Amino acid sequence: QRRGIPEAILAEGKSIQQVISLTELALETTDRALLTRVSDEQFAALESALSESVPEATLERRYSTIRVVSPEYDSPSLDATVGIVTAGSVDAPVADEAHVVCADAGATVERIDDVGVAALDRTLDQVDRFRAADVLVVAAGREGALPTVVAGLVDTPVIGLPVSSGYGFGGDGEAALAGMLQSCTVLSVVNVDAGFVAGGQATLIARAIDAGRR
Amino acid sequence: QRRGIPEAILAEGKSIQQVISLTELALETTDRALLTRVSDEQFAALESALSESVPEATLERRYSTIRVVSPEYDSPSLDATVGIVTAGSVDAPVADEAHVVCADAGATVERIDDVGVAALDRTLDQVDRFRAADVLVVAAGREGALPTVVAGLVDTPVIGLPVSSGYGFGGDGEAALAGMLQSCTVLSVVNVDAGFVAGGQATLIARAIDAGRR
Amino acid sequence: QRRGIPEAILAEGKSIQQVISLTELALETTDRALLTRVSDEQFAALESALSESVPEATLERRYSTIRVVSPEYDSPSLDATVGIVTAGSVDAPVADEAHVVCADAGATVERIDDVGVAALDRTLDQVDRFRAADVLVVAAGREGALPTVVAGLVDTPVIGLPVSSGYGFGGDGEAALAGMLQSCTVLSVVNVDAGFVAGGQATLIARAIDAGRR
Amino acid sequence: QRRGIPEAILAEGKSIQQVISLTELALETTDRALLTRVSDEQFAALESALSESVPEATLERRYSTIRVVSPEYDSPSLDATVGIVTAGSVDAPVADEAHVVCADAGATVERIDDVGVAALDRTLDQVDRFRAADVLVVAAGREGALPTVVAGLVDTPVIGLPVSSGYGFGGDGEAALAGMLQSCTVLSVVNVDAGFVAGGQATLIARAIDAGRR
Amino acid sequence: QRRGIPEAILAEGKSIQQVISLTELALETTDRALLTRVSDEQFAALESALSESVPEATLERRYSTIRVVSPEYDSPSLDATVGIVTAGSVDAPVADEAHVVCADAGATVERIDDVGVAALDRTLDQVDRFRAADVLVVAAGREGALPTVVAGLVDTPVIGLPVSSGYGFGGDGEAALAGMLQSCTVLSVVNVDAGFVAGGQATLIARAIDAGRR
Amino acid sequence: QRRGIPEAILAEGKSIQQVISLTELALETTDRALLTRVSDEQFAALESALSESVPEATLERRYSTIRVVSPEYDSPSLDATVGIVTAGSVDAPVADEAHVVCADAGATVERIDDVGVAALDRTLDQVDRFRAADVLVVAAGREGALPTVVAGLVDTPVIGLPVSSGYGFGGDGEAALAGMLQSCTVLSVVNVDAGFVAGGQATLIARAIDAGRR
Amino acid sequence: QRRGIPEAILAEGKSIQQVISLTELALETTDRALLTRVSDEQFAALESALSESVPEATLERRYSTIRVVSPEYDSPSLDATVGIVTAGSVDAPVADEAHVVCADAGATVERIDDVGVAALDRTLDQVDRFRAADVLVVAAGREGALPTVVAGLVDTPVIGLPVSSGYGFGGDGEAALAGMLQSCTVLSVVNVDAGFVAGGQATLIARAIDAGRR
Amino acid sequence: QRRGIPEAILAEGKSIQQVISLTELALETTDRALLTRVSDEQFAALESALSESVPEATLERRYSTIRVVSPEYDSPSLDATVGIVTAGSVDAPVADEAHVVCADAGATVERIDDVGVAALDRTLDQVDRFRAADVLVVAAGREGALPTVVAGLVDTPVIGLPVSSGYGFGGDGEAALAGMLQSCTVLSVVNVDAGFVAGGQATLIARAIDAGRR
Ligand SMILES: Nc1ncnc2c1ncn2[C@@H]1O[C@H](COP(=O)(O)O)[C@@H](O)[C@H]1O
Ligand SMILES: Nc1ncnc2c1ncn2[C@@H]1O[C@H](COP(=O)(O)O)[C@@H](O)[C@H]1O
Ligand SMILES: Nc1ncnc2c1ncn2[C@@H]1O[C@H](COP(=O)(O)O)[C@@H](O)[C@H]1O
Ligand SMILES: Nc1ncnc2c1ncn2[C@@H]1O[C@H](COP(=O)(O)O)[C@@H](O)[C@H]1O
Ligand SMILES: [Mg+2]
Ligand SMILES: [Mg+2]
Ligand SMILES: [Mg+2]
Ligand SMILES: [Mg+2]
Ligand SMILES: [Mg+2]
Ligand SMILES: [Mg+2]
Ligand SMILES: [Mg+2]
Ligand SMILES: [Mg+2]
Repeated sequence: QRRGIPEAILAEGKSIQQVISLTELALETTDRALLTRVSDEQFAALESALSESVPEATLERRYSTIRVVSPEYDSPSLDATVGIVTAGSVDAPVADEAHVVCADAGATVERIDDVGVAALDRTLDQVDRFRAADVLVVAAGREGALPTVVAGLVDTPVIGLPVSSGYGFGGDGEAALAGMLQSCTVLSVVNVDAGFVAGGQATLIARAIDAGRR
Repeated sequence: QRRGIPEAILAEGKSIQQVISLTELALETTDRALLTRVSDEQFAALESALSESVPEATLERRYSTIRVVSPEYDSPSLDATVGIVTAGSVDAPVADEAHVVCADAGATVERIDDVGVAALDRTLDQVDRFRAADVLVVAAGREGALPTVVAGLVDTPVIGLPVSSGYGFGGDGEAALAGMLQSCTVLSVVNVDAGFVAGGQATLIARAIDAGRR
Repeated sequence: QRRGIPEAILAEGKSIQQVISLTELALETTDRALLTRVSDEQFAALESALSESVPEATLERRYSTIRVVSPEYDSPSLDATVGIVTAGSVDAPVADEAHVVCADAGATVERIDDVGVAALDRTLDQVDRFRAADVLVVAAGREGALPTVVAGLVDTPVIGLPVSSGYGFGGDGEAALAGMLQSCTVLSVVNVDAGFVAGGQATLIARAIDAGRR
Repeated sequence: QRRGIPEAILAEGKSIQQVISLTELALETTDRALLTRVSDEQFAALESALSESVPEATLERRYSTIRVVSPEYDSPSLDATVGIVTAGSVDAPVADEAHVVCADAGATVERIDDVGVAALDRTLDQVDRFRAADVLVVAAGREGALPTVVAGLVDTPVIGLPVSSGYGFGGDGEAALAGMLQSCTVLSVVNVDAGFVAGGQATLIARAIDAGRR
Repeated sequence: QRRGIPEAILAEGKSIQQVISLTELALETTDRALLTRVSDEQFAALESALSESVPEATLERRYSTIRVVSPEYDSPSLDATVGIVTAGSVDAPVADEAHVVCADAGATVERIDDVGVAALDRTLDQVDRFRAADVLVVAAGREGALPTVVAGLVDTPVIGLPVSSGYGFGGDGEAALAGMLQSCTVLSVVNVDAGFVAGGQATLIARAIDAGRR
Repeated sequence: QRRGIPEAILAEGKSIQQVISLTELALETTDRALLTRVSDEQFAALESALSESVPEATLERRYSTIRVVSPEYDSPSLDATVGIVTAGSVDAPVADEAHVVCADAGATVERIDDVGVAALDRTLDQVDRFRAADVLVVAAGREGALPTVVAGLVDTPVIGLPVSSGYGFGGDGEAALAGMLQSCTVLSVVNVDAGFVAGGQATLIARAIDAGRR
Repeated sequence: QRRGIPEAILAEGKSIQQVISLTELALETTDRALLTRVSDEQFAALESALSESVPEATLERRYSTIRVVSPEYDSPSLDATVGIVTAGSVDAPVADEAHVVCADAGATVERIDDVGVAALDRTLDQVDRFRAADVLVVAAGREGALPTVVAGLVDTPVIGLPVSSGYGFGGDGEAALAGMLQSCTVLSVVNVDAGFVAGGQATLIARAIDAGRR
Repeated sequence: QRRGIPEAILAEGKSIQQVISLTELALETTDRALLTRVSDEQFAALESALSESVPEATLERRYSTIRVVSPEYDSPSLDATVGIVTAGSVDAPVADEAHVVCADAGATVERIDDVGVAALDRTLDQVDRFRAADVLVVAAGREGALPTVVAGLVDTPVIGLPVSSGYGFGGDGEAALAGMLQSCTVLSVVNVDAGFVAGGQATLIARAIDAGRR
């Protein structure tokens, strides 16, 4: 484990055999493995391979992010809450990457979905939940306005997570990224679809808060 | 006058002498002149020239947009209200271009300033005024989120007007333009700083509504 | 139904099962469903599913845009005409998205096809039909000059709808979008291929005119 | 003289002394000099210097393009007409560069100004003059639609010359260039503001036609 | 047939049935059909369909460009030579599009292949053939330097045709297009892979020369 | 004061009179004013105006960032350290913006200058100081590699602050921004030259840590 | 063989039959063939074809780069060492292209893998091996910081080789290319994924050094 | 002196006082100073300051690059020749930056000017001089084709140096950079106008060759 960041295996671009071996190695050495951007095919092969080689391990899956733990794994626990917010359903897979990273590190994850600003009531209904978190990851595609609106409603750090939705000019997350970088309020940002990075940064902040609380 | 759009003189890139001559010609033929993107120097020269050549004319100025009318000018009047909304003070000069165009065409202009979404209370305080307009021009720079939020609160057409503020990636109005084109709600858009076009399009809509009302 | 805009289901990126469920839900609650960007495969599955679950419903299809109505659906009707104009046959699918949205809202849709400016006679032959509409959506790809030419011939609001045709520099609708934003006349614009947004904005304008006429 | 193209001195980026020396050298060796992108300051200095060193030479100026000829210069003459067309007054300086190059090579230049497509009558009024030319250079900024419309009306080669006007997205001639490259008709194109190149290419075509006619 | 440009059917994006019908219609009305960007699958289907419906017609194919003529077709003939030059073998399919257009219009086509500037001897070996043409289309991808070098060696008009080869920064023909637009000599240019446009423009020039020669 | 972020006056684009009035107003209401992007001319005028109107106030200046406090101002204090790191001297003015924001909020600021990675010893010499901070703002221009290297050496959150240095491709901070967004480690990022935003985000994190420590 | 650069066959975009014929021709004329960007399918077909036509030849493969030599081939040998360095495993295929080119030219290749700067110890552990090379090719994707760091540690020429990894803004090697061009130290660079060019340039340098040493 | 690269002072962006102090410090410690991007104003001030403080020092100036040496400076000497080639006179200032760096390091510099490929005879006339160099820096703006042509004529390493000339699409050196990166031959490249980097890299190569020769 480098620094405080959860170590993960980026499955995208790896062969099925590489994914399985790296996962088995991680389980052997740390009793735990985290995989991002896993395809359905990779998942099926991994599940079947592990059921033979490490039958006692448990697989947890959120879209393309997967966590595998052995029974003897001693899960960490942090006294800090990360809020993970999405604008629409298309943002869920990317938000899930952040979600799994934070949960794996032991943070309490508070998930607040489908609160995009085109229907502002739904955003405003969640203000109390936004405020209850110690740090927020806010995922949004298209025009990416949600992190700005949320950051204007809370006193805690907000990490903008642009999502590669949208078509035409500014599509594929570019308008969302640009909008978050131009935000009139205070935000820091990660790259388009970089759920792992957003979750990692939220984890580092959560851990610093947790340390302060102890 | 081509079509229903107010005819205007684009002062930018013209010599002082050209600006004066074109204004005098417009006054002579139509008793009215509209000028956009007028520099301070051009304004001073124009004011002094007209005080000699057409002393009876009145000059009205909003930032760099100027309207000159002769006493005999028969101002049109439309039974329709255009709301002109700005996110921050930096958006005022561009919004003023739209403002003058609509007012000149006889529409009632309802101006709603400084309601950017980073301080959402100020936005929400104005919902009734947003709803009272027949068509809205919403000017915003930086991340340009305001038109999306306003459009989610009303039943009338909204024209997004991106403003060339901001620095770094997406600066100079590019993030605002991209965000408005990617909006999760229904908007149409004009180019960055194209206040004249936004005002012209609002005028065409206002005129169609006015015709329906008669 | 949010605001006055027809609610639609964006089929692109959704599973067949999601598309079917969302359509059935929409029919159950509002007796009507509108779907955009539906693939052939999604359409076939939807048609067969609805023939079992809601056999009394009627499906209407224009390229990838689909409208489903129950017999008890009480179609709205607006006293306003939207002209939908295309430069060439490649623009039809995108124009159809706008077409269905406006028709669904009860507007009269006047469709004027294949009048691109490279063969100007065909454009000029349609001037009377352009002028008969209350608002125009003009779809064009490649260099996207048609909305400018049409807007120079009418007194009504024109919404430019750039289409993702063309290759090389400025291809995929980018030249068309840029050209419409740079237009020498008054236009407002939506994003490349955003037929739904163009139709929604035309609907809002048509509804405002209809209200004035009542 | 390299190939058949008129040799020119690009004044932009040169010192006043360099401009004067190069002009004097050209006059000495070829009895003629052609200068492009000459600033007012460079022009004044050149005029005064030549009035001393080569008082018998004549200076002709169109905006920033200048031609100087000695009395003994034997002007060439071509039996071919180049039409030079502009959309608006902002296009004149760039069109003038092409104009001077063609005239200097001995072609008949037919100039047709201010016929941009937003006021289509003015374009159509000139069809006979467009058709009378052997080759056309068509200069346009903003959305750059004029070359497409003109090329659709004639049987002769058209060279599109994009001009760096416009602001916001696609400004500074980029939309015009992209639109001409995407044109639905047959055009060839030069770079933004490259009046010299457009004039040079028209000259080469005119010379080939002239050779055929002899 | 619009203007002097050969009419062609762009097969790309059309169904097999559309391609066949449009070809049969063209043969019926003009005894000739020209098709560009035809896939192998479209070609096979077309060949088999025509062997039944119009067995007397002849198909000529150069990569993806196809020409079909009935025996009664009266081929035009021009007294002018178009040189079509390629830098490497990757440029052939695009050059072929230009080739077929010019040949179809009756021009003599002189083809000069594989003379890219990285092996300058091969370029220089062909100078006489370059000079023998009345107009040249020069196709090149990657850095696109060939049209500049060729234009420096001849007195005739050169049309640069950038080809979408290359990878990384400036790949897909963008460096080639930019380089041709920036050329230090006189060139006009068409869009990336626009072989049809280059051939059309060369045809218009060849026809003007041919007219002069008669 | 909105949220927990220090309120600041963005002097850029404001008149001298506006800057003075806004500063006096801030002092009157909160006994403190923070100004960013202040020009030398604005500074001189402000200093002289305040020496008359509020002679008891103290001005602190770091490059173009200025803080003014009245004697009665009760400075906040946070039990948390923000490390502010620069790659080279060109990064200082932007880093200073962040510096003043954090110091103004009461955080301890640890400044570590001139440790760019092209001379890696100097970077490595500071590892202990990097590790002593609770949160780090790392400013770098050109290739912007420093935040990645620093983040690989510590366990605390790092905020990358790209600076608009560099020329040619990727110049003006674009390569630095892209590199930080692409970083192989965990970072969050703000826009180019957005020292105020970086400092604001660091402050929010510092405050959360401080709250945990109490 | 043009100049001193190893001649290679770029398999990408060629048919299987072309690849086989070109390889056989190369073997026949030079007893050696080098192929880059060979697909698995092309490789299988080539291997099987050569086992029949040239059974005595040996195939060597590194990812998609292949070298075939006849027994009688007289391999060159250079008294110079090229270091080939990668940041991570995703860089290997591109680095292999460079590797094979240099080895084929007879240089000693020293391969140093997986030393990306996010884990700086691993970079620093290899300083002696970096210094032992006469010239270095350093391949890196994402933020591409490794060539800068390595070049700061050695006295020999470093060629930066950006690799098309990464997603979002600056993805596909663009941030890496920009970062290397902006490097604060002295580097020269090749295009994204241009392993062949990097290897060719390293070979030219190695050969010059070798000549000096003889 | 870091590594083998000549240390230089980048005057751009520094105050006159900083430039003087840094130069005096360099002279004091190393008896030599190298300055790049020096303005006329900075040069005049530096010259006058040094004539007082270090009257025995000698200033050498090539455009904006300056070298100052004390009489006791022991100039290095390399047994290697760097060819520095320019396409046109606009490339001279950037080429001079490379020139001074190489000469300062003791390499023999062979300068070959004004051999751009639009007049190919002048290029070919210099082949023997190109071949006499051990390494070449080739500077070119506009379409930047010269390095490709030169590299095709020699067996030595060529470093492409793009220059920020040109206007319109691909202007300011972007087409030149892209063209060099796309070159069909083997080249490595530095950023636009990065004469210092090109000279530094040529120096490192020259030094390696020199070491081999000893
Ligand atoms: N083709 C389309 N382009 C843009 N927006 C659309 C399109 N079709 C539907 N929408 C909008 O997207 C929303 C549907 O999103 P979803 O909940 O993902 O189905 C609807 O409320 C529409 O406003
Ligand atoms: N406005 C212009 N745009 C592009 N090229 C030009 C222009 N004016 C002159 N030229 C060309 O640039 C060369 C002059 O360059 P120079 O030697 O710097 O004066 C001439 O040979 C012309 O071919
Ligand atoms: N340098 C800066 N960069 C970005 N935002 C800033 C900067 N300085 C101040 N601000 C923000 O911009 C707002 C000030 O805007 P204004 O009302 O125009 O003075 C403040 O509320 C700050 O949040
Ligand atoms: N991967 C590669 N990237 C760039 N150039 C290559 C590559 N492989 C081969 N080449 C060059 O491209 C030429 C081969 O082109 P071709 O004739 O199409 O096989 C060779 O002469 C090499 O100089
Ligand atoms: Mg959103
Ligand atoms: Mg805003
Ligand atoms: Mg069109
Ligand atoms: Mg125009
Ligand atoms: Mg080429
Ligand atoms: Mg740096
Ligand atoms: Mg890397
Ligand atoms: Mg050049």
